[in-house]
Amino acid sequence: MAIGEIGHVDVVGSKVGGCHRLALTDKDKQARDLFIKWAQDIGCTLRVDAVGNLFLRRKGKSDELKPVMSGSHLDTQPTGGKFDGIYGCLAGLEALRCLNERNIQTLRPIEIAVWTNEEGARFKPAMLGSGVYAGVFKLEDALNTEDESGVSLEAELERLGYSDLADLDDPGCHQYFELHIEQGPVLERLGIDLGIVSGVLGVRWYEVEVTGRSCHAGPSPMDLRSDALVGTSKMITELTDMTMKHGQDSRCTIGELKIPNASTNVSPGKVKFSLDLREGSLDQLNELETKAFETIHRIAYHHQLEIGIKETWSLPPCPFDTKCLSLIQQACELSHPEVEPHSLVSGAGHDAVYISRVAPTAMIFVPSEDGLSHNECEYTSPDQLEKGCDVLLNTLILAANC
Amino acid sequence: MAIGEIGHVDVVGSKVGGCHRLALTDKDKQARDLFIKWAQDIGCTLRVDAVGNLFLRRKGKSDELKPVMSGSHLDTQPTGGKFDGIYGCLAGLEALRCLNERNIQTLRPIEIAVWTNEEGARFKPAMLGSGVYAGVFKLEDALNTEDESGVSLEAELERLGYSDLADLDDPGCHQYFELHIEQGPVLERLGIDLGIVSGVLGVRWYEVEVTGRSCHAGPSPMDLRSDALVGTSKMITELTDMTMKHGQDSRCTIGELKIPNASTNVSPGKVKFSLDLREGSLDQLNELETKAFETIHRIAYHHQLEIGIKETWSLPPCPFDTKCLSLIQQACELSHPEVEPHSLVSGAGHDAVYISRVAPTAMIFVPSEDGLSHNECEYTSPDQLEKGCDVLLNTLILAANC
Ligand SMILES: NC(=O)NCCC(=O)O
Ligand SMILES: NC(=O)NCCC(=O)O
Repeated sequence: MAIGEIGHVDVVGSKVGGCHRLALTDKDKQARDLFIKWAQDIGCTLRVDAVGNLFLRRKGKSDELKPVMSGSHLDTQPTGGKFDGIYGCLAGLEALRCLNERNIQTLRPIEIAVWTNEEGARFKPAMLGSGVYAGVFKLEDALNTEDESGVSLEAELERLGYSDLADLDDPGCHQYFELHIEQGPVLERLGIDLGIVSGVLGVRWYEVEVTGRSCHAGPSPMDLRSDALVGTSKMITELTDMTMKHGQDSRCTIGELKIPNASTNVSPGKVKFSLDLREGSLDQLNELETKAFETIHRIAYHHQLEIGIKETWSLPPCPFDTKCLSLIQQACELSHPEVEPHSLVSGAGHDAVYISRVAPTAMIFVPSEDGLSHNECEYTSPDQLEKGCDVLLNTLILAANC
Repeated sequence: MAIGEIGHVDVVGSKVGGCHRLALTDKDKQARDLFIKWAQDIGCTLRVDAVGNLFLRRKGKSDELKPVMSGSHLDTQPTGGKFDGIYGCLAGLEALRCLNERNIQTLRPIEIAVWTNEEGARFKPAMLGSGVYAGVFKLEDALNTEDESGVSLEAELERLGYSDLADLDDPGCHQYFELHIEQGPVLERLGIDLGIVSGVLGVRWYEVEVTGRSCHAGPSPMDLRSDALVGTSKMITELTDMTMKHGQDSRCTIGELKIPNASTNVSPGKVKFSLDLREGSLDQLNELETKAFETIHRIAYHHQLEIGIKETWSLPPCPFDTKCLSLIQQACELSHPEVEPHSLVSGAGHDAVYISRVAPTAMIFVPSEDGLSHNECEYTSPDQLEKGCDVLLNTLILAANC
């Protein structure tokens, strides 16, 4: 069985199908168990921490040294693909298999990490497991986080047996490397199969609540309504247009929208939506936020609506470590001298962002077909995937020997 | 206990609170039971039909004649008030109490009907019980209708004990009168406490499905997305603007909107929304529909989205019976000669619309404060409610004696 089969979704138009494997569901556990088994089959030892992050360790010559770490996540979006996250985990395992097969011993131990709830689709925010590891989130807060149906992360860790395994001994991390699909169109457009990720856009998540006045769809004249959905729709249109003009790296996404107590013949009195803003620099992110809030409040005023905005997650723009970046550069030259790797900024947050707060960190990207991700049609060719693996292998060897 | 206490919701700003009493829930059953008890207490007999409509009958001198009927519904919207529907039922009961107290015998029997699932909030479409009674919907189709969680109307009728009671003997209906709150602003603006309803706007309900392409909120440049929600938002804005210009009686409401598999960091690939269009004449309704479809398809084309539209309910504009209207006019003169009742068209569909297909029918309105309904702040003053009751009483006496 392949891990990608766990949560597989058949989708017309997708080359390999999609995946629905939300964090800490039975399917996620199945995927993790298979991954652990494969790692243990090649002699790795398992450590689980208090938030369910997995660490699979290959001994080093000087095993007391801090390990070099690589990793990613096995959870997916509800409409996820077969590559986001899982690729980085499997590539790490593949690198360890190679080292075994060639009898290569490294000075430092190497650990492959599987971070809990990277996607932020089931529990919010994203990158919760790596955030706890890096001390960005308090363990207690993370454990108390609930999914939409009110089930807490802690309850799921207990149910799946991770709480019993939790080992609080942390050997630290010498350097962290994450291999991931780009999830955007840059490498494909350039026709370059390898990307060296110099950093990640800043992100802010908000919950916006729009309150108008519900009324009957029939007798209420159009001009006497204060319809929260009509106002919200104007906001979404203008937020999108504003962001388009703001800059190359500007992003604005409304991914969730709910009308509580919705009914076909009720002009909605309340709407709640999520807002995801991204930018390349802190100044630009602040400016984008200011403009977004102005847009929301201006339209609300015009439509006699009340607004509540709550920030739920924030990630400042994150530059990666120059030493780690040059190790990846070296590894690219060793593995694929025919490719001139492209340096780019990631639009997606990754566990690497949080790990970079406690250890030198950098990332490697391979292209995504059509720039697609968080979509069942997500695809990267076997050849491109292999190139990425090669670079990760050489990076880990270089890093684990100094 | 008052029926309005069953499902009561406390709401800041509401004079008497709101009601959440969806069709065929335990709360609806409780309300129906109390209503039946009160009617039986004054000597009425109960008949239940196969779709759970209740008929509470006061004998006539010539009891074999077709009854004069009055009625409305006890179910509410999720954000319903204390008057929509329940007022008409209680006013009918109050009229029978008056006849008893004054020892008035009528030639024909009088029946007070409680129609099942008028609101269309739990089971779709609206006015399902009266629609079955009038032969507009097949009984079997109505029984198979499911709510959002997949529970069928039939299962609820069985669970609540109505199926066992179902009596298929139908004594018919001589004339039908429904007293209701206006749910709009017309009477209040004119300062007139009594309305004679000459007819009801035509209504069409649709389910619209918008399909784009989901992608990652971070790495996907704004100009490369085909975001189903961004497209839908433009549609809602333009549909609203178009309808505003279309005419005095034109209505367009998007009451429900869902993003399947929504996630904060996913630009939505699919959106489903409900569309409720209303107009005064069939020609105008057709024109409004044509313009609405054009708007949706034009925006979809521009945003590279695919569209599916399914009509789920349709109600042609309905004129009421002139003889019934003049009986109400007479009753107004008898009860409140100081009020010049206003003739108006209802924007809301009512059970009376379906009953009008099988019996001469007309309606009486009393004002709604701020024109509000399908809102917990719905309100009509005791004095206005009493005026409406007076007119209903005299209407029933006039109708039941000829
Ligand atoms: N790579 C990825 O999907 N990360 C989730 C966090 C984000 O929204 O950027
Ligand atoms: N009166 C009322 O709320 N009727 C429901 C059907 C409609 O939407 O018009």
